[in-house]
Amino acid sequence: MAANLKPGTTKARILDTTAELFMRYGYTGTGLKQIVADANAPFGSLYHHFPGGKQELGVEVIHRSGAMYLELVLGVFDAAPDIVTGVHDCFAGAAEVLRATDYADACPIETVALEVASTNEPLREATAEVFESWIEGATEKFRAAGIDDSTARELSISVIALLEGAFVLARASRATEALDAAGKTAAAAVEAALRR
Amino acid sequence: MAANLKPGTTKARILDTTAELFMRYGYTGTGLKQIVADANAPFGSLYHHFPGGKQELGVEVIHRSGAMYLELVLGVFDAAPDIVTGVHDCFAGAAEVLRATDYADACPIETVALEVASTNEPLREATAEVFESWIEGATEKFRAAGIDDSTARELSISVIALLEGAFVLARASRATEALDAAGKTAAAAVEAALRR
Repeated sequence: MAANLKPGTTKARILDTTAELFMRYGYTGTGLKQIVADANAPFGSLYHHFPGGKQELGVEVIHRSGAMYLELVLGVFDAAPDIVTGVHDCFAGAAEVLRATDYADACPIETVALEVASTNEPLREATAEVFESWIEGATEKFRAAGIDDSTARELSISVIALLEGAFVLARASRATEALDAAGKTAAAAVEAALRR
Repeated sequence: MAANLKPGTTKARILDTTAELFMRYGYTGTGLKQIVADANAPFGSLYHHFPGGKQELGVEVIHRSGAMYLELVLGVFDAAPDIVTGVHDCFAGAAEVLRATDYADACPIETVALEVASTNEPLREATAEVFESWIEGATEKFRAAGIDDSTARELSISVIALLEGAFVLARASRATEALDAAGKTAAAAVEAALRR
């Protein structure tokens, strides 16, 4: 798995650089020449590590970024005293990152997911697998807090949708109002489910 | 305004075709040659109607699609017996369109908004203006139903975020589960605000 790669290796640098470029420019807008230049890697190393070229690299970046982001979010949940605070902290943390990165770093796979949904099956499948892993990870947290299975899954989908949707509005408006509003609605939805 | 263009004119065909292509391929993935070919327009007509090229065309498509989408959604609200049903019907209608278009036609500007947020100021501003017009349109509906100003705006942002986020999940998974779950959460949030 790419997630176990030694940091600093050429392959790890290519993957990290590509993930960064995908967030800012999307899949179509990211060129292989820019990747090797930013990763300080020889051009040949790209096809050495990813014989399938940009698509193979893209699939690996989506899986790797998706796994790292899940770990990050689950860490925020684990550090919070309760699940409602955990949800609130995820939106507040995301708002902070957006402000700190000049509204560039939001979801690592959202732009790519929309670009490839109708055009590239292997990439679409990779984004679908990542989103499903996030939904399952959040569902597990909500179930552990005592919410029934079907409500927990609906809630997970809604919280992730609120976050992804707020990212679009926040990046477009260069303001975090959408993350504040969506975070409030997400926390209220979890509270309502806990009361049931 | 482009929205008042006579349908069937070359300019209207170019705008409609570009809007369609943006939904499926995004801004970067849509080429000018493909636009004129699909619009059945001579190449020169593109620069005749849009001297600023792809960027000027993009800005006009975003404004035009945004205005048409707002009208469509407000029409769904107006046809519903109450605001909660209106919100539900928006998500149900979006799910139906996604299924009917093989998961291609979701939000007309979401993909472009994410692609351009860090790279193209005129296009980013156009997407921000459209999202703000949607937020204001929905806020007006919620205020008319008796919800206070600040709650109405938060609710509008949240409902739009739920819809935009569900579009990402639905297109990636090629399933409408996310729209069903997000629609339920959106309707519940509006119900809770009405009870306050």
